[in-house]
Amino acid sequence: MTEELETPPSLNEQFENLIHLEDKLRIREFLNNQNISDVAELVDEYDEFASQIIGNMSTHRAASVFKILDFSVQKDVIQELPPLKSAELLNELPADDRTAFLEELPSEVVKELIKTLDPEERRITLSLLGYPEGSVGRLMTPDYIAVNSDWTMAEVLEHIRDVGRDSETIDVIYVVNDKGEFVDDMRIREVILTNPEKVVSEVIDYRFIALNVNDDQEVANQIFRMNNRVALPVVDDQNILLGIVTIDDVLWVANEEFSEDIQRIGGTEALDEPYLEMPILKLFKKRVVWMVVLFIGEMLTATAMGYFEDEIAKAVVLALFVPLIISSGGNSGSQASTLIIQAMAVGEITISDWWRVLRREIISGILLGSVLGIIGFFRVVLWSQFFPDVYGSHYLMLGATVGVSLMGVILWGTLSGSMLPIFLKRAGADPAVSSAPFVATLVDVTGLIIYFSVAYFFLRGLML
Amino acid sequence: MTEELETPPSLNEQFENLIHLEDKLRIREFLNNQNISDVAELVDEYDEFASQIIGNMSTHRAASVFKILDFSVQKDVIQELPPLKSAELLNELPADDRTAFLEELPSEVVKELIKTLDPEERRITLSLLGYPEGSVGRLMTPDYIAVNSDWTMAEVLEHIRDVGRDSETIDVIYVVNDKGEFVDDMRIREVILTNPEKVVSEVIDYRFIALNVNDDQEVANQIFRMNNRVALPVVDDQNILLGIVTIDDVLWVANEEFSEDIQRIGGTEALDEPYLEMPILKLFKKRVVWMVVLFIGEMLTATAMGYFEDEIAKAVVLALFVPLIISSGGNSGSQASTLIIQAMAVGEITISDWWRVLRREIISGILLGSVLGIIGFFRVVLWSQFFPDVYGSHYLMLGATVGVSLMGVILWGTLSGSMLPIFLKRAGADPAVSSAPFVATLVDVTGLIIYFSVAYFFLRGLML
Repeated sequence: MTEELETPPSLNEQFENLIHLEDKLRIREFLNNQNISDVAELVDEYDEFASQIIGNMSTHRAASVFKILDFSVQKDVIQELPPLKSAELLNELPADDRTAFLEELPSEVVKELIKTLDPEERRITLSLLGYPEGSVGRLMTPDYIAVNSDWTMAEVLEHIRDVGRDSETIDVIYVVNDKGEFVDDMRIREVILTNPEKVVSEVIDYRFIALNVNDDQEVANQIFRMNNRVALPVVDDQNILLGIVTIDDVLWVANEEFSEDIQRIGGTEALDEPYLEMPILKLFKKRVVWMVVLFIGEMLTATAMGYFEDEIAKAVVLALFVPLIISSGGNSGSQASTLIIQAMAVGEITISDWWRVLRREIISGILLGSVLGIIGFFRVVLWSQFFPDVYGSHYLMLGATVGVSLMGVILWGTLSGSMLPIFLKRAGADPAVSSAPFVATLVDVTGLIIYFSVAYFFLRGLML
Repeated sequence: MTEELETPPSLNEQFENLIHLEDKLRIREFLNNQNISDVAELVDEYDEFASQIIGNMSTHRAASVFKILDFSVQKDVIQELPPLKSAELLNELPADDRTAFLEELPSEVVKELIKTLDPEERRITLSLLGYPEGSVGRLMTPDYIAVNSDWTMAEVLEHIRDVGRDSETIDVIYVVNDKGEFVDDMRIREVILTNPEKVVSEVIDYRFIALNVNDDQEVANQIFRMNNRVALPVVDDQNILLGIVTIDDVLWVANEEFSEDIQRIGGTEALDEPYLEMPILKLFKKRVVWMVVLFIGEMLTATAMGYFEDEIAKAVVLALFVPLIISSGGNSGSQASTLIIQAMAVGEITISDWWRVLRREIISGILLGSVLGIIGFFRVVLWSQFFPDVYGSHYLMLGATVGVSLMGVILWGTLSGSMLPIFLKRAGADPAVSSAPFVATLVDVTGLIIYFSVAYFFLRGLML
């Protein structure tokens, strides 16, 4: 017997064999023996069997797999499962994961699906979907353990044993007073490590961190990072406890938001499916819109250049530096705008900081512009020593034109690149939406005007 | 008494008063009554008092504040505290947070600081710093609760009560066998909700998710998202339990990695301090390097244009479309490269997918190029109807030149934009390092060559 024969078949091989046999019972048994995340990977790998896999699991485990699938697969599963099965699955899904799934669907479909929920789950779902998109309310789950502040630790532990199975987390216990107002939370460790006779109100210190239901999800991300918690309570403006948010949901949100930011900085609409799985026409549609918008903007460069056609005809050498100058402006603009977008995304900069940002970018722009302007000047002067024909006798003035234009264009790129994201945010738009390529386009057009104006100033009477 | 007088003074006001009084005892009392995260915010706000604030707290609370401060503030605090105090603080710091702090410092400083640690903490720290940067080992903490698989639940609970105070988390309990091999983990809820007489080995199912100590931190991020855990065990290749990683550390890593990616896409070295707090000269240094590198690359455009000077002199109109054509190539290149960088960052694409990516980008490039090429063609043709002088009688051929060049340049931009990040990763470099602006520069230079070659083909004998 060789060693290769002894290697147990991989999960994928086992699954392929079973699917081939079409033996429902054995498939079910096999799926029940796997980790949730392994099943989720099987679903990703064999998405044509996605609904079969989910349909063949116990509802509870099916829900655990379902909630970590990509949205596009989730949608297929819900469509393909028999109505009764998909209703069971939706009812079993934790409220926060259900909200995350439903908020991506068209509203007609949502209405249909909500009808299949039990009255209690329907009530919860409608109330969660009532909070604004991107708010903490949308991440919330009502499945937590709340205790009254006048219970003893023994009573708390008893209560945990009673209701713990249905709770999203029992790592943190929430303490409310008789009015339902939130007064503090306790780690489960405190409950276990404290004398069972003690009353909750003696143990807690009434110092707590809570999220407001209307807070932005980005705020939740920051608060979790700063506070080392696995779950945080969510209250309304009257401090009534509404639900909790767990850190794993925040990790998803952080990943999604950053991914969207990166895609938008690159000039694409945010993709809602993985790159390789997205149908190519859909991918094209997400990309072409911004490309066309930017292209139409860039067409202004041809118009702008048209105004300077006579100057170019007189001094063709001026045309040679057009790409260098506009791309340097574009680079400085993208650099500044991505810096500001990123700093706003992590909350380091708010709209009210615009003046501090502007001051810093004026200095940065002058410094960067000077360095590149000086390099550009010497590039022209040096070249003209080796190839005297190319730039002619006015090479010093041509060098000055290139150098000063670079300074102006780079300073202008830095300023518009840093201010545009702040203006967009101020106007209520997402600052990441194509800021970087949009700035590049803006700077291209204005850069040409700067360049030819500087050229007119330095070269009038010499070459122009 | 007006209502305004009744509002209690804000934390900041209280703090300012106390600092003014220089009453150490009252400052200490005040700080001990605040939330850790509130103290951290005070430190951020009044960073000139950072070391005073930290120095006036109990070592345990000081460590909790210290670990959530920005690295630049941490460094100042350690430098400014009396040596004894800073040694106490470093010893108290959880091992994972200590690693995170030390790995940012120059190695001479690390050596000095490590000398101040107790032998046990020194041993742990040296072993953690021994793992490669960016690996799971660097995130690990050895402060967890491990139990033997033949203990009863009552014994487990007893053990938790004994050692729980020193553990980073007691939400998850780790089960090892007599050889120290990891066999499973249990949520604390299982321990509480199970009959105390039961033996651990009867309760666990030996199905577990563990991280390998050499895994990339990005892998840890994915596994956490997929598995709904607050902490994961870390094992070596022999399955020996070495430590645990908690989800809050992963949230930090995710935020940092994405921030770095965005900064690099924008053509800046990753910033290690918040934008507004970074000294402006340091910010300039981070930005100027890539600007100069790209600028030197872009200087090739002037050289390339130089080769076509005669053609431009003959047909000045050709120069008018140079910005439009090269910037369209640049935009398609940045779009493709950011898409691929983002997909690689979240693990959707690996190097082995290069062929699938290439096929998709060929199709996308042809589609995008066709759309913009057609718009470009009609732009020239329409314009020449309104302004017959500008483009002359060969406007159809000029339109064809612009349209075909756009197609070629955009296809080329898409291909180089998508392949460059994959090549960089294959070569062991970070794909996000300035891919987008680098692609733009590459496409600018080659775009000019494509444009003038196409022009030569269509316009030879007509305008050239």
